[in-house]
Amino acid sequence: MHVSVNAATSVDGKLSSRRREQISISGDGDFARVDRLRAEADAIAVGIGTVSADDPSLIRHDESHRESVRGSEASSPARIVVDSSCRTPLDSAIVAGDPDTCVLTSEAAAESRRTALRNAGVTLIVAGERRVDLPEAFATLEDRGIHRVMVEGGGELIFSLFEAELVDELTVYVGNTVIGGRDAPTLADGEGFVDGFPELELTSVDRLDSGVVLAWDVL
Amino acid sequence: MHVSVNAATSVDGKLSSRRREQISISGDGDFARVDRLRAEADAIAVGIGTVSADDPSLIRHDESHRESVRGSEASSPARIVVDSSCRTPLDSAIVAGDPDTCVLTSEAAAESRRTALRNAGVTLIVAGERRVDLPEAFATLEDRGIHRVMVEGGGELIFSLFEAELVDELTVYVGNTVIGGRDAPTLADGEGFVDGFPELELTSVDRLDSGVVLAWDVL
Repeated sequence: MHVSVNAATSVDGKLSSRRREQISISGDGDFARVDRLRAEADAIAVGIGTVSADDPSLIRHDESHRESVRGSEASSPARIVVDSSCRTPLDSAIVAGDPDTCVLTSEAAAESRRTALRNAGVTLIVAGERRVDLPEAFATLEDRGIHRVMVEGGGELIFSLFEAELVDELTVYVGNTVIGGRDAPTLADGEGFVDGFPELELTSVDRLDSGVVLAWDVL
Repeated sequence: MHVSVNAATSVDGKLSSRRREQISISGDGDFARVDRLRAEADAIAVGIGTVSADDPSLIRHDESHRESVRGSEASSPARIVVDSSCRTPLDSAIVAGDPDTCVLTSEAAAESRRTALRNAGVTLIVAGERRVDLPEAFATLEDRGIHRVMVEGGGELIFSLFEAELVDELTVYVGNTVIGGRDAPTLADGEGFVDGFPELELTSVDRLDSGVVLAWDVL
């Protein structure tokens, strides 16, 4: 499987403010770029923190990119939530409508929550005891035909994926602002590394809107 | 006064790990770049957190840059610590030897600590009641002939300077690694902005070593 992480940060690496409100970091050029990346993915993944904070639909803005990349018969990328406890609200935008939504969860999720999500049309993949076992869950996705996953945050999921050595590619739009805040979410949160830091290779640097897009391969 | 902030971060905006140990983020090319920036400064400033964590001497590695920029008679840039409580240890590298060291502090600093630092040869500038009043302290520095200050961190001081609207220029070396950690120090910590985010203008983008240097003007 190929896992590509994409995010927009302030110059200081923040995804949003300490209030976790969405902040306009990028512009139209970056929205189009993200749409093109989404067009190449079989699935788009976010963490439960991002669902709680932003209620994203993960539906692409412009289907024409997808048709040009994959042909007009291609279905929209599936939507994935990494959610150890099945906290995804039934009325969230990511559950509503098409395309398919898959929740990766753990044995710790209450049976009632699992049933409720299944009844709402969500596919559940259970892997791991207390937290989602990401390698196992991603292997199951691959078995189901999902070969390219694009991860759109947040910082907890992104760190967990780096920790599990599942990230192949990282693309960051660095916007022209400073958000600040020792409690503001960053591109990679979690416990953090203290050694064995992932090594990246800078593959491209492109100015876009008022910022710059840095693309890195994970070595 | 012209205030230029310079830092090296991981792709996720961290200055170091949650253990606050120094991590090799940049390489020789960036060290030379920082030395050139130091050569143009009248003073180099850090926060007390950086003194506690890293014990920097803030002495330039290579005086030849300075001589080429300022002539061989030029003195090394003065060293500044922003330290509201005069916690700078008397045996810290920033107090030892030349060049001059100036501690910006507040009325909250104990008289015994102030005396100890003065006896160690440190110049004190007292501004602000509980925390250093940065605009007042920087105005005092300017009165004493310091017109160009280069700030080398950490994230608490950098945020405070942005909050006080004192930053003119921000240069960030983005290195080819991910550090992660919700408790790891970032380029701009403090309380963080929730609105009125500073607006920057990207002035240059240069690949260096295995990373990239982004230079921004503060609008």
